[in-house]
Formats: sequence, structure tokens, C-alpha cells
Amino acid sequence: MIVEPIRWQEGRLTIIDQTLLPGELRYIKLDTVADVWHAIKRLSVRGAPAIGCTAAYGVLVGLRERAPESVDEAYAALAEICDYLDASRPTAVNLGWALRSMRAAADASRGGVDSIADLEQALESEADRIFEENFELCRAIGDHGADVIPDGAGVLTHCNTGPLATGGEGTALSCVIRAHAAGKQLRVYADETRPLLQGARLTAWEMQQAGIPVTLICDNTAAVVLREGKINVAIVGADRIAANGDAANKIGTYGAAVLCHHHGVPFYVAAPYTTFDLSIASGADIPIEYRDPDEVTCGFGPRTAPADIDVYTPAFDVTPAELITGIITEYGILYPPFTESIREAAERREREAGGTAAVPG
Amino acid sequence: MIVEPIRWQEGRLTIIDQTLLPGELRYIKLDTVADVWHAIKRLSVRGAPAIGCTAAYGVLVGLRERAPESVDEAYAALAEICDYLDASRPTAVNLGWALRSMRAAADASRGGVDSIADLEQALESEADRIFEENFELCRAIGDHGADVIPDGAGVLTHCNTGPLATGGEGTALSCVIRAHAAGKQLRVYADETRPLLQGARLTAWEMQQAGIPVTLICDNTAAVVLREGKINVAIVGADRIAANGDAANKIGTYGAAVLCHHHGVPFYVAAPYTTFDLSIASGADIPIEYRDPDEVTCGFGPRTAPADIDVYTPAFDVTPAELITGIITEYGILYPPFTESIREAAERREREAGGTAAVPG
Repeated sequence: MIVEPIRWQEGRLTIIDQTLLPGELRYIKLDTVADVWHAIKRLSVRGAPAIGCTAAYGVLVGLRERAPESVDEAYAALAEICDYLDASRPTAVNLGWALRSMRAAADASRGGVDSIADLEQALESEADRIFEENFELCRAIGDHGADVIPDGAGVLTHCNTGPLATGGEGTALSCVIRAHAAGKQLRVYADETRPLLQGARLTAWEMQQAGIPVTLICDNTAAVVLREGKINVAIVGADRIAANGDAANKIGTYGAAVLCHHHGVPFYVAAPYTTFDLSIASGADIPIEYRDPDEVTCGFGPRTAPADIDVYTPAFDVTPAELITGIITEYGILYPPFTESIREAAERREREAGGTAAVPG
Repeated sequence: MIVEPIRWQEGRLTIIDQTLLPGELRYIKLDTVADVWHAIKRLSVRGAPAIGCTAAYGVLVGLRERAPESVDEAYAALAEICDYLDASRPTAVNLGWALRSMRAAADASRGGVDSIADLEQALESEADRIFEENFELCRAIGDHGADVIPDGAGVLTHCNTGPLATGGEGTALSCVIRAHAAGKQLRVYADETRPLLQGARLTAWEMQQAGIPVTLICDNTAAVVLREGKINVAIVGADRIAANGDAANKIGTYGAAVLCHHHGVPFYVAAPYTTFDLSIASGADIPIEYRDPDEVTCGFGPRTAPADIDVYTPAFDVTPAELITGIITEYGILYPPFTESIREAAERREREAGGTAAVPG
């Protein structure tokens, strides 16, 4: 079973409470806009695309809760609901993007809407469109990426890039899911991904749910697994990709890329096209966030390092383009030289899309 | 302050209870042989050389507790005490070795001993000899290894190889301690060393206690630290070294060696000569222990991975000789080709030592 972290059924929004994973799979109903706000705030739903989809349906939840008595009242309520939800996680790009799309759909409906039911219909269509566009984008990445996974392969991955993070089938994990769906035998080797253990808590669980063989390893065990010939290909996600192909992703990705290079194993990055930031020439210009040392020294309850110890805690690292075999996007796989292939893809995309933005990753 | 995990003062044995670290530094008195047995069993003292030293003094603790009324009764008690202590951790090589040395010292004293006090004196001398030989061995490794640490260096290390593990100044960490004592500025970058976090719990604490600047990193952050140019040299320990120089050490060491190789940073192994096993031709023949998956999935207390997940848990890995710059021993630093330098050192050692075994590491 491919996990569905977000469900909209018969007008009710239900999500997996990801804070309880992997111990418990519990779907929670979000019946009020405050429920939606808190679910995003406390990370019951996480991953930029998944947050965007939840917020879009959350607008509908909020409107129904307010039960406006006129269409004008409904439009006024809508603005307040969007402002409220937008503040749940101020730095989440997809959250603001999804809410702006919902507002734009509402604005576009003005004049053509005779009843609150009509407005709700317009909003539901827009939320469905956001959800489906995201789903199709993930699937397109996965279908392209499945081609690089040989039958019988061991696939190394890092952090979490699956359904829980995206609402669809994921990015790097979508490649695995699509290869598996196509009948290929494979085994995922999931780095646990210190300090927050997204690989252990989420990736391992998602693969288990999907019935895809998965082996959990400590990050420091990847080198041995590679040396033992268990890995045929590595696929990871990305948070931002520079114009030259340098890719920022969760800390530990760069080390995994070096290890793959040393062992002659191809190393792919899977990400939607919106992850490219062509205003950034190279990875040297990608700003890196540093996390609270407590995540390393007492992230699981007991303190496991001395008090006041100096801890170096970059949340991300940059894998230089020369260690990347290919970048798997919804438009296909880009190969080196990346400066050219990325520019060509951007031009093609602009021509084809005519300016319509895809769902940011 | 260099940590002293084992103290023998005015006939009383005191150790640091390492199970309370890094949260609390508590010395506990071991006043009975059962205290000693339990301290070894429950890992209040750990690290092969440290266990050996504790057991040696533990024989004296046991003999005084029994308060034998004749010399013959004392010799009989001694055998029972050694058998009892030997069972505290059956696989600890240094434990059995230290107890055999104590028995041999007792046997050698027969005939020349007139009183229980004389026997105690002979045993105390032997325990002191074991302790001091171990201390000198660590210091010799450190003095040789200090030469490879430039002034102002960043030093990467993995797992724990310091005073707590050895009773002396350590192996890899002895090099750091001696370089620091010689007035060099340096900073240790300590891999936390999943799954059991010896780097976070013990190495970081020991360096802090010694007043040596130390930065804790997740294992997966070493690659970035190397790329940023913060590391000038890496020094790690070893559990066993084959005749060709392949070295088995805590899981994650091999990956660190590959990363150092990629970044052009010298990678040293520091270990006493007894770590060499010339009966083993290469690392391929070194048996690897696999650990309980629970150490990865719920080692911090709460379960952080799905139940029944497959986990690959080698406790050690093997770094091939070609990734090792040099092997730092108490006799000096061995360089490639290791098959020759190791054989030459073995021959020299046999000539010089005339068959006397050094303290096993």
C-alpha cells in the first residue's frame, strides 16, 4: 500500500498524524480551520508539497466551519481563513503558494458565482487541481527515475522523499515506487539520517507499508554496504539546485555522493523542476541553515553528549555537480554538462508551460 | 585534566562509573571482589586495557576481602578469585591476560614469600607493572603520533580511543593529548559514532575534561567538515590489523577513510603492536561481529524505526591498507608497503623484547 498522508473524502479532510510514526498509523480528522492550523504547526503534516495540499483543502474546511450567510460574507471569510493558515509555518514556500492559488481561484469565480455552494465548488476544484498536479508531478519524476533502477537493484537513499513528504508518491522514493510497480525486484537501503532520523522513522516505514524490501542502516554503514556490492544506484532528493547542477540536500547527502563516486555507483538527484534556482550560479551561493545542537545531543530524550559541548550542525550540504550522474525531473533526466542541460530544460519548459508554474517542491 | 578512569591509592581501588557519563562524573569504590566483577560486567569500566588493569587490582581487593589466615590459604583463595573475575566478561582478551599475569606473579613468588603481606606486595607490584606498562605504551603511541599533527590542526577521529578505554592516555586520542601537551593548538572533530555514540558520550567528554578544543559532529557531517578544509589529519584506533595493513575498527571508520582519501587528508591508524594479527593475511579474513538491531532502532529509549524492520548492523568495518597513510604503534609509525613494514617491525620487536609480550590493546 502506498501511504496516503492526505485524504479528502465526502467533504472531510483526514491526514496521517506523522508525529506518531513509525509507532502508530493514525488518521486524524481536521474538522475546523484551527485543527488544520495546528496540524501544520505541530508537524502532523510535513514536507512542503504535503503542507500545500493540506492548506488548500483547509480553506474549504474553514469556509464550511464559518457557515457564511451570503456570498459576500463567504468571500470576506475566505481572506481571513487564508491569512490565518498562512501563519502556521511562515517559511513553508508551498503553503503560501497553495493559499495564493486558492485566493486566485476565488477571485476568478467572482461574478460567475450565485451561491455559496458554487463558490465551494470552485474552491474544491482548485484544491483538487493542486493535489492532482502534485500527484502527477511526483509520478512523472518516478516514471523517469524508474528507468535508472536495474531489475534486482539495491538502491541507496538518504532522508525522506516519499509520500509522507509530498502527498504524492514522492521524488527519489517515487522512482523506487514506480520501478517496483513496474515489476522490478529491488531493495532500498535507507540511511537513518541523523540527527532527526527521517530515514529510520519515515522512509523505512513508507517502504514497509508499500511492501518494498527495505534495510535500515546507520549513515556510517553506507560505505560498507557499497563496498560489499549491495548498491547499484543511489537516488536522493534536493532542496535547491543551482544553475550549474550543484544540489543542496539534507546533511549527509554529500558524503553519500563521495562514497558512491569512490565505489563507481551512479548517484542521482530527483526533484521537481521548481527546485532549480537559476539565480544561483553554484552551490557556494546556497545559504545553509544550522540547527539547534540539542537535536544532536538530546534529540531522543536523554542527553547523550556533555553539556556545553560545541556541535557543528549544518542542516544541509551541497553535492557538487561533478558527483551527480543525472538529475531526475518531471520533464525527464538531465545529464552533464548540467549548466547546458538545465538551461535548455528551462527554455523548453517556459515554451511549453507558457508561464504556468508547476507545484513547487 | 586527563581523565584517570582507574585509581589505586592507599590500597583502595576506585574507578569512574562510565555508565553515568557524560551526565555525571562519579568515582565509585570497589571494596569487594563482587564490586569489581559487577563493575566489569555492567560496563562501569570498559575498553580492553582498562578492564585488564581493573581486574589486576581486583585480585588484590579480593585477597584482602577474604582475609586468609595462612599463606597456603591465600594462594588457594587467589585461584578462586581469578576464576571468578575471569568470568565477568568472557570475551575480553586483556581480562584473561591480566589475570594470568597476576597468577604467574603469585606462582613466581612461591618459596620466596614468608607472609601474606609479602604475597600482597608481590601482587601489588605486578598490578602496578601492568598498569604502568599500559600507561607507557599509550604514551609511546601518543608521542609518535603527535608528530603527524601539525600546529593549528583539525583532527578527525571516530569512536573512543582515549583514557576511558585504556586506563592510560589512549591510542588515537593519546596522539592528540601528547600533541596538545607539547603546546600545539588543535581542535578535535569527534564523530558521534552511531549506534552507541561513543564519540558523543565519551570522546567529547574526555577532550572537554582535558581542556582540548573539541567539536562534536554527526557521522554524516564529516564529509562537509573535510570539504570545508577544517581537517588536516584523521587518526582512529583499530581492533585488529591484518599482515597486509588492512585494519578493522568501529563501523564508520572505512567511510571516514574514503572521505579523507577523496579530500587528500592523511588517515592514520593508532594501535599497540598486539593489535596486529600476522596470522591473518588481509582484512577479508577478519571476522565481523553483528550487533542487535535494537541498538539502531531504539538505542535512545523510544523506538525510532518501525517494528520488524530489517537492519544491517556490522559492529566493525575494514579499512583497506591503501587508504591508510601510516600505522602509529608504540615502536614508531609504520608506512606502506605495510606487508614489509609490519613484518620488519615484528622481527625487530621479537629481537628486542626477547619474547616478552606487550600489553594487548
